[in-house]
Amino acid sequence: MSEEDFKVTPFEVEGKVDYDRLIKEFGTDEIDQNLLQRIEKNAGELHKFLRRKYFYSHRDMDKILDDHESGEGFFLYTGMGPSSKMHIGHLPALMFTKWLQEKFNVNLYIQVTDDEKFLFKDKEYEQVQNYADDNIKDIAALGFDEDKTFIFKNTEYAGHLYEKAVKIANRITYSQVRSTFGLDNSSNIGSLFYPAIQMVPTLFEEKRCLIPSAIEQDPYWRLQRDVAPKLGYKKTAAIHSKLLPGLKGPEGKMSSSKPSTTIFLDEDIDEIPEKINKYAYSGGRTSKEEHREKGGNTEVDTSFQWLQILLEDDDEEIERIKKEYESGQMLTGELKQIAIEKLQNFLKDFQKKRKKAEEKVDKFKYNGELAQKMWE
Amino acid sequence: MSEEDFKVTPFEVEGKVDYDRLIKEFGTDEIDQNLLQRIEKNAGELHKFLRRKYFYSHRDMDKILDDHESGEGFFLYTGMGPSSKMHIGHLPALMFTKWLQEKFNVNLYIQVTDDEKFLFKDKEYEQVQNYADDNIKDIAALGFDEDKTFIFKNTEYAGHLYEKAVKIANRITYSQVRSTFGLDNSSNIGSLFYPAIQMVPTLFEEKRCLIPSAIEQDPYWRLQRDVAPKLGYKKTAAIHSKLLPGLKGPEGKMSSSKPSTTIFLDEDIDEIPEKINKYAYSGGRTSKEEHREKGGNTEVDTSFQWLQILLEDDDEEIERIKKEYESGQMLTGELKQIAIEKLQNFLKDFQKKRKKAEEKVDKFKYNGELAQKMWE
Repeated sequence: MSEEDFKVTPFEVEGKVDYDRLIKEFGTDEIDQNLLQRIEKNAGELHKFLRRKYFYSHRDMDKILDDHESGEGFFLYTGMGPSSKMHIGHLPALMFTKWLQEKFNVNLYIQVTDDEKFLFKDKEYEQVQNYADDNIKDIAALGFDEDKTFIFKNTEYAGHLYEKAVKIANRITYSQVRSTFGLDNSSNIGSLFYPAIQMVPTLFEEKRCLIPSAIEQDPYWRLQRDVAPKLGYKKTAAIHSKLLPGLKGPEGKMSSSKPSTTIFLDEDIDEIPEKINKYAYSGGRTSKEEHREKGGNTEVDTSFQWLQILLEDDDEEIERIKKEYESGQMLTGELKQIAIEKLQNFLKDFQKKRKKAEEKVDKFKYNGELAQKMWE
Repeated sequence: MSEEDFKVTPFEVEGKVDYDRLIKEFGTDEIDQNLLQRIEKNAGELHKFLRRKYFYSHRDMDKILDDHESGEGFFLYTGMGPSSKMHIGHLPALMFTKWLQEKFNVNLYIQVTDDEKFLFKDKEYEQVQNYADDNIKDIAALGFDEDKTFIFKNTEYAGHLYEKAVKIANRITYSQVRSTFGLDNSSNIGSLFYPAIQMVPTLFEEKRCLIPSAIEQDPYWRLQRDVAPKLGYKKTAAIHSKLLPGLKGPEGKMSSSKPSTTIFLDEDIDEIPEKINKYAYSGGRTSKEEHREKGGNTEVDTSFQWLQILLEDDDEEIERIKKEYESGQMLTGELKQIAIEKLQNFLKDFQKKRKKAEEKVDKFKYNGELAQKMWE
């Protein structure tokens, strides 16, 4: 696969993604300066994911702001596919969703797609269930609003999803899912129906839905925007992120089936230094001398990318690191050391919250205000 | 379409069905003398549907009798597609199911496939719901065991169906449903998934399932028998009936969208004579003289077929009518008069029971012993 080739579907990412080209291919809009200013005006600040263009593409985000400004309001929906323990690549979309909920004070629905991971991956049903229950605890640790957030597993909540899914499914043909998702004759009939299930939460309220997710999920929302108006609902809006680069570099996606490509949320803090030092893809030069002379490449350096996207809030500090690394003043070992310390602190903090979160799971699933309403 | 051509799928029946050829095409077994004797020995008698070979084909009915004789037992499952008000063509399978429940004292699950009729027919969702609720009252009037019968609408019970449906769907490809059901690229994705939903009740118990239904439904059971063992369940057994001929003759199927092809269960008793006299296909000759000389054809005569299949319990009386009509002694008008009177009595009796049945619906759906257990 040449540098120009890449493939992005909801099920796989191959090659080095050209995100600008993806915007054109998917037909989404770039988040421009104008939109950033409107978001900042309404939210009071800009999340670093926006400042640093990690969330960089959207559909109808301007209409979401219109709805917010007019007082009509909107709601948030995002999801989690429980095919493994969660890793840091899963966090940005959820963290950004939490920020949006806080700033706009809106309802949030989090769909845990246990059916999807069973139907699309070669996993045992019970295994997926275990991951789902485990993932929900991780999600609960992120601190969403307990009375405005409903977390549900598809198989458990199916009784409330099926009727709307059938109405959606009735409007989508095999040809459409084949071309949109790359399914084929050998695809199982559960996977063919599944897109309808993933679209249901966009119809949970009559308000407009905003979906923060990685851009790979966009095909679902494109199809939703085709179907929803026919059922008397609004086209969903979406705000898309890039993908957090894997430990081993910018090609492909973090994969929990390859532990050397990622850091799990329950990773042993003491083993992080070795994992980063051993696996983290470096943008540094082959020799110290060459590095001092020509400088490192932050674009492809995993440690830098993780700092910039996820770990370092301070824009000035990121600028300093970037300048020193690119000028050759900072060596790969030093950059890795910064990333290691930041990552250790980040995960220590998360793991502490995770312990306290277990008791909150029932709130999100059953007893919080929104959850109760959704089970009625 | 020549006399030799016919088409039978779960969704349509065209032409005059050659039932013997259908057994070969579907790969089912004929109900032979041996099997009839075993059923009679266990049930204490033979239902007229069996004596007259209206239920004529099966899969593993011998194993059902083995399971009954060994004390392991079995359970019954049948269904109703609510695309219209119910007509007399819907009754034989249900009446036979009731007989089996009585004779073998077993649990019975009746699936009302509201999702199917919405996904496969061009009907409004609300309209299908109304038919479903109406059909359930008709079914309740047939007098099933209130503590051993569970009637459910798929959309209402979906929360309890979806998990098993997903496990079934995971084992069936698009190619399989395409060839088994004649679906294609333009089929909606709900219809592609639907077969999994229809198979779920065969897995409600670990015992063997017996499905009494018209033979057109067999493709579902063929696929079930492929999938069930892979999920650790038994292949379902089935016992198949022919189709009750339409008012207008032996070709095609009764269709509620064409009221002149059938008699509805709520048909005005006083209008039955005109409907039979006007529409009932006759096996009589064109002139009275020719009829007296050559006799009528009972094989294609709707009045005779309805008497033989549904309305006349007495074998000797049926023999008498057959002999007199075929010899020319009985004229079409006389035969129609017998059918009219029998049908009027049959429907009067049904409509009386239907009025009392409305209060029983909750028993079958929610409060009976089996229903309660199924909602837990």
